[in-house]
Order: sequence, then structure tokens, then C-alpha cells
Amino acid sequence: MRAVDIIMKKRDGYPLSEEEINFLIEGYTNGEIPDYQMSAFTMAVYFQGMNEEETTLLTKAMLNSGDILDLSKINGIKVDKHSTGGVGDKTTLVVAPIVASLGIKFAKMSGRGLGHTGGTLDKLEAIPGYNNYLSDEEFINQVNKIGISVIGQTGVLAPADKKLYALRDVTATVESIPLIASSIMSKKLAAGSDAIVLDVKVGSGAFMKNVEDATKLAELMVKIGKNCNKKMTAVLTNMDEPLGYAVGNSLEVIEAINTLNGNGPKDFKELCFEIAAQLILHADKAKTLEEAYSLCERQIENKEALNTLAKLVEAQGGDKNYILEPSLFPKAKYTYEVCINNEGYVNHINALQIGNAAMILGAGRKKITDIIDHSVGVVLHKKVGDKVDINDSIATIYSNYSNVDEVKKLILDAFSYSNEPITPQIILKVIK
Amino acid sequence: MRAVDIIMKKRDGYPLSEEEINFLIEGYTNGEIPDYQMSAFTMAVYFQGMNEEETTLLTKAMLNSGDILDLSKINGIKVDKHSTGGVGDKTTLVVAPIVASLGIKFAKMSGRGLGHTGGTLDKLEAIPGYNNYLSDEEFINQVNKIGISVIGQTGVLAPADKKLYALRDVTATVESIPLIASSIMSKKLAAGSDAIVLDVKVGSGAFMKNVEDATKLAELMVKIGKNCNKKMTAVLTNMDEPLGYAVGNSLEVIEAINTLNGNGPKDFKELCFEIAAQLILHADKAKTLEEAYSLCERQIENKEALNTLAKLVEAQGGDKNYILEPSLFPKAKYTYEVCINNEGYVNHINALQIGNAAMILGAGRKKITDIIDHSVGVVLHKKVGDKVDINDSIATIYSNYSNVDEVKKLILDAFSYSNEPITPQIILKVIK
Repeated sequence: MRAVDIIMKKRDGYPLSEEEINFLIEGYTNGEIPDYQMSAFTMAVYFQGMNEEETTLLTKAMLNSGDILDLSKINGIKVDKHSTGGVGDKTTLVVAPIVASLGIKFAKMSGRGLGHTGGTLDKLEAIPGYNNYLSDEEFINQVNKIGISVIGQTGVLAPADKKLYALRDVTATVESIPLIASSIMSKKLAAGSDAIVLDVKVGSGAFMKNVEDATKLAELMVKIGKNCNKKMTAVLTNMDEPLGYAVGNSLEVIEAINTLNGNGPKDFKELCFEIAAQLILHADKAKTLEEAYSLCERQIENKEALNTLAKLVEAQGGDKNYILEPSLFPKAKYTYEVCINNEGYVNHINALQIGNAAMILGAGRKKITDIIDHSVGVVLHKKVGDKVDINDSIATIYSNYSNVDEVKKLILDAFSYSNEPITPQIILKVIK
Repeated sequence: MRAVDIIMKKRDGYPLSEEEINFLIEGYTNGEIPDYQMSAFTMAVYFQGMNEEETTLLTKAMLNSGDILDLSKINGIKVDKHSTGGVGDKTTLVVAPIVASLGIKFAKMSGRGLGHTGGTLDKLEAIPGYNNYLSDEEFINQVNKIGISVIGQTGVLAPADKKLYALRDVTATVESIPLIASSIMSKKLAAGSDAIVLDVKVGSGAFMKNVEDATKLAELMVKIGKNCNKKMTAVLTNMDEPLGYAVGNSLEVIEAINTLNGNGPKDFKELCFEIAAQLILHADKAKTLEEAYSLCERQIENKEALNTLAKLVEAQGGDKNYILEPSLFPKAKYTYEVCINNEGYVNHINALQIGNAAMILGAGRKKITDIIDHSVGVVLHKKVGDKVDINDSIATIYSNYSNVDEVKKLILDAFSYSNEPITPQIILKVIK
């Protein structure tokens, strides 16, 4: 078998066999197939696509290139969620405690952020003392004991994907639905849970710009997961504005805590409930979606979800007082209001631009070696559909620098207005 | 400027600017742009193509990556021909002496063969003593003195093309018309002549399988040449059977000599005359194609063309007696007839298969380091359109091995037959 013949076969639009896909991925992982053949291959896939079977085979080949977490020592069904990445996305911090408080085992390996704002690990590290690095054994023991753990990646999960993603990033072959689907799913499958809910973001602030492409991606990932005997749901959600109001690490943790206290932003709460409800259904803790939603509401009202977050933080070395009293989080040195000259209704907020504003303040990383400032960020006061008047503040900037002119301009430019109000919808589609 | 953005632009179907193309080719030649970006780029070009302007810019960028031969010290118009490669193609050995004998300066750098049979250099080396390696100065002096020289490449012509072609070969991106056109034209332009006639082969034995694709390639190359102020013609010619009867190095030289003696195969003679006539027109030595054809005929009849070949051989250290008395060429140890069980009319001869048969005998190279046996090869006795009867010999095998079963089978399988005769056409189209 020769790599060039496999590239040619894909280039000419033919589906590849299991043997061919394994040959490519094994050869690439062990260095026998060079980058220049793999990048020609990924460009051919960009144009010719891959069918469901091929994409499943590619996912499995990448999954098998590294460690696969064995969660069989955790009793009961283990659930996980994954977001394709959005601005202001602190969903895990709310979903995990809700489902864990219902006795569903939530065992999640999470990531850091590159670009606009931090990932879940970065947000958790805004809580003093929180330790993202447990061993596999500690991780499993903690989930068995308190039903929940959120940590950084252990072992070497899907190294083929890591190598391939880095190559795609510099060869303009990221934007391919089968390659995105297999990349996400190889890592999620390696993390070992039984049921996965995928949050596929759609809109100007997301990787998928329209519902059509997002649906294709979501359907493909759900099929791959099912082909690998996982319970799967994908939720398409709106990223035509940031999620909730807060963008920035401790600001987002505070917003998550507020949500667990019953005071969450409408869009964010709805998204968290939908994802949690889908996980509750997979774990057979409710018969209908309505029942699952009611359980979410109950776990907020009785503070069980909040207390579960506090338990998680405590178990991983963090100071749980910050959860119970979020005013303890250190504040940025300066705050600035962003006031507008318009009147009308907000009809769009460019989420990536708000993310970039937060990154410039220090909430995210431009380079992988940048150090995050947990205290800084942006809190919006207006969301899509809100009425605004001249001189209204649309956002507060939390900064440790005194010059925020660039950030202010980015935020102002991110907003657009119309004369008529529009009603945004957070949940666009559910795919099972 | 970043390579990844240029790849993305091409991937998305936009034409590239001169600056972008130069950035890519300069960066790739000096090693700043890695193979893995270039192969993703060539795959994007495979799918999205390049327009005439882009292809001209790419050609010029590759041309400018190395030495460009300065033939200005040769008086008068300098002409050159190029074939995209066929089986039994000894055209240069006839065309060059015809036009040179008319006082047109023929200054050609030629190549070796990889695959089925040798290239022009290999064929010339079948003549004892012939030296393919002159310096630029010797080359120019010889053309000024006797009007003709055919040598191997001097200097470093279009190194970007060399590097890129090697990459395309292992990444399934050879078959792209703009990439083929720019590859051929960058080398031809670097060789410095004023007028170029391209022989674009079409058919089962050629790179271009149909007239449509061959026309696109030919038109593009003619435009590139004209954009670079060259006089250009492309001739589309039939490669649905080998050219002439002989396939193998000294066997082909002998067939060329026979042609210069007025005893050439019909198809081969017609092709040589067409190419020579187009060069004669470019050099203003005739007013019409008919007149140019008559000049070709005259130079054969008066032996001027044959004597010019003898002069070329002598000037480059070869023994001209072989040209005047071709029976001097060493013979292969064994000859075998290939007889058939069919009757009817030959309607197709798979040229590549005949080429492979010759290669197995030792007439061509599988690897670049293989040594060619000049004496071996295949001489056909039947061509497309010929009537055959049971027990007719369709070919003679010239071999230095006694076991030629595989070769015999290849030749037998290469022939197909029909009940009705067909009339093959060698010249399919002329593009100016």
C-alpha cells in the first residue's frame, strides 16, 4: 500500500477502506508518512468529503493512536458534554453540578483556551487552589465518591488527532466537516464516558456559520458516537452574540454561580438546562424532556447543584468559600463603562469581537505561553433584542490597564442595531 | 503575507496575485515554505485550477528561480521543440537535422527517460562517442558554427519546478493542467529559444487521455509562451499506438536514420514534417505550410538533413559512420517473433504496454540509477489499420536475455483487433 495511491483515490472521489485509513493514520502517527502527503490528503478530503463510514473509521484510527481512558471502575452511567467553542461559554460549570447532584456520574476532561478567552480549565483556575491535575486513579476515585470531577487531560489521548490538527491549522484544511467531526469525536471517545451531549455553536461567533453546516457536523458526530456504542445528542445553539453577559474567567465563574443561585441570564440558563436535561434523559433519570427540565429547576431551587459545585471545588483543593460567596473573587483594578450614541434595538453582537476585546485585556491567550489574568474581562448590559437609548452603557470593562480605548472601540463596533426588536433563540435544533 | 492564507485563497477559488505567487515560489525554493504547505497548495490548485494569468505568473516565478540560458550570441532565430512524452518518440532526431539543414538554428537541451524507454539523450548515446555534455559556450559556438546542437541540461534551469514536480509526484497532484503547463513552460523558457513547437500527445499511451484535456493544456502553454514573447505552436498528436515501428534506443536511432533516407514509417514521417514545417514557418523560411512541407521533402531527398545529423554527431564526438551506415549499430543477442492467433484489423496498440515491454528488456529505466541497454527493444510489424492473419508476426523482440515470455505476453495483450479497418490519424489538431 502506498500513501500516494490513497491520496489519489480520495482526490478522485472514491471512499477509502478501513485498511487504507488505518495505514494512513498509523503511518502518520509513527512518522512513516510525511506531513506533505498528509496535507495533500486533508486538502483532498476538504474537496471530496468522507462518508459516515469513512469518518467513523478515521475517528477510530485516531482514537486508537493513543490512550483510551477506562472508566469501567466508576459505577453507573458516566456522562460528558462538549462544546465546539463559543464566547462566554461557562456551561460546564452549571451543567456538571446539576447532573451530578442528581446522582449521574460526571467525569470530564476539559481543555484550555487559545484565542479570545480561557477554556474551562482556565476558568476553574480562577478559583484559588483548584487543581486540574489528578491522576487517572484519583479522578476515578473522586467520581465514585462525590459523583463529579473536571480535570485536564491525562495520558496521551488521540495523538494522531493532535498532530493532524496542527498540520491542518497551517495548510488551510481545518474547515472540513468530516475532519472536524473525527477530530472532536476521537478525543471525546478517548475520554471514556457512556453518554455525550455535544453543544454545536452556530453563527458569526462560531466555527459553523450557518445551521445547514452545523446540522451536517452534528449529525455526523452523533452517528460516529452511536457507531461506537455511545448514547449521543447534539444541540445546535446560537452564537450570534456571546453566551450570557460575562466574558472573562472569574467574571464567568461568578455568572455560573449566580445561575446556580437562580439568577442566571435567560439564554445561558436555557442552554444549561437543555444540555443537562439531555444528559438526564440518557441516564434514565427522567422520562420526558419536561420532567428533566423540572429536575434542573429543582436542583437550582434546593441549592443542591450549587452545593455540588462547592463539593467539586473542595475535592480538587479549591476554596469553596468563593463558590458560596463570589464577592471574594479578586477584582480588576479599573472598570469602565461603554456608552453608546444610538437608540433602537440590539440586533447582533459580534461574539468574536467581544472575545478579542477580552483577550486584549488579558482574559485569553494569543500564544500558548501567554499567562491569563483571571480578573479581567467584559460584562455586557445589553443583549440581542434589548432596547437601548443614547448614553446607555452597553458593557462594563474590567481591566488592570488604564488605557482601554482599543477595547472600547471593539465593543462598540461589535454591536449593531435595528428599529424593530428581534427575539433571539438560543436552542436552534436538537439532533439525536 | 502567510502561506496558509494563500492556500486558503486558492482553496476558496480566488485567483492569486503576482506578489502571492512569487512569495510561494521564492519561499518554497529557498526552503522557507515547507513541503506540507506546498502540497496542500497544489492539491487546492488541482481542484480550483488557475487562470491563464496566474499560470503565466507561476511559470515566470519558476523560470526565475534558476539560470536562464542566454542564446543572444547565436545569430538569427533559435528554435526548439518539446514533446510531452510518448512511446517510440524519436522526433528530435529527424526534426532537428531537417530544420538545421535549412539554416534555422536548432539549439536544444534534452532530457533522459524514466519509465518505458530512454529520452533523446539516451537515444543519442546509442551512437558511440556522442557527448551530451557541452558547456554553455561550446553549445553556443557549435550552433553558430554548424547550426545545430542537442545536449543535456547545463546550469540549474527552473529548480523550483524540479522541487515542485518531485513533490507533486508523491502527493497525487501531477494531473493538473495549469501545473503541467507551468512545469513544461518554465523549463522550455529557461532554455532560451525564440520559437517553440510543442508536441502534445493524446491517447491511451499519453498523459492526456482525450483531445479536450490536451487542447486545454496546449492552448494554455501556447498562451504562456506568447505572454513571454515566444513564437508558439502546439500540435496535438495521436498516442493510441507507438510512434513508428521501433521502440528501443538504437532501434529508434536506426528508424530515424531510415526516415532521413526517405524510408520512414508513415505516421512518424508525417509528425516530423508537421513539427519541422511549423518551425520553418516561425523562422520565416516558407510562406505556407505546403511550402514548408515541400522543403522538408527536399531536404530528405537531397540528403541534406541526413548529412546534418552526421555533422551534429561528429561535432559532439560521435562516430558519424553509424549515421551513414546504420548496420554498424550493435545487435541484441537474440531476436524473437511475436506471432498471433487472430485475424482481422489492428484497431489499437497500447503504447504504454509496448513501452513497458521494452523497459523489461532493458531499453528504459525503472529507477533513475538503472543502466540502459541500447541494443534491445521491440520493432512492430503491424500498426493500427493493418490487416493481420493467423500466424503473422506482429513484432520482433530484440533481447539480450533468452527468456522473453513476459515481454511476448505484454506485446500480444497490447494489440486489439476489429473486423473493419480503421484509418488512424497522427496529427489531431494544430494550435497557434
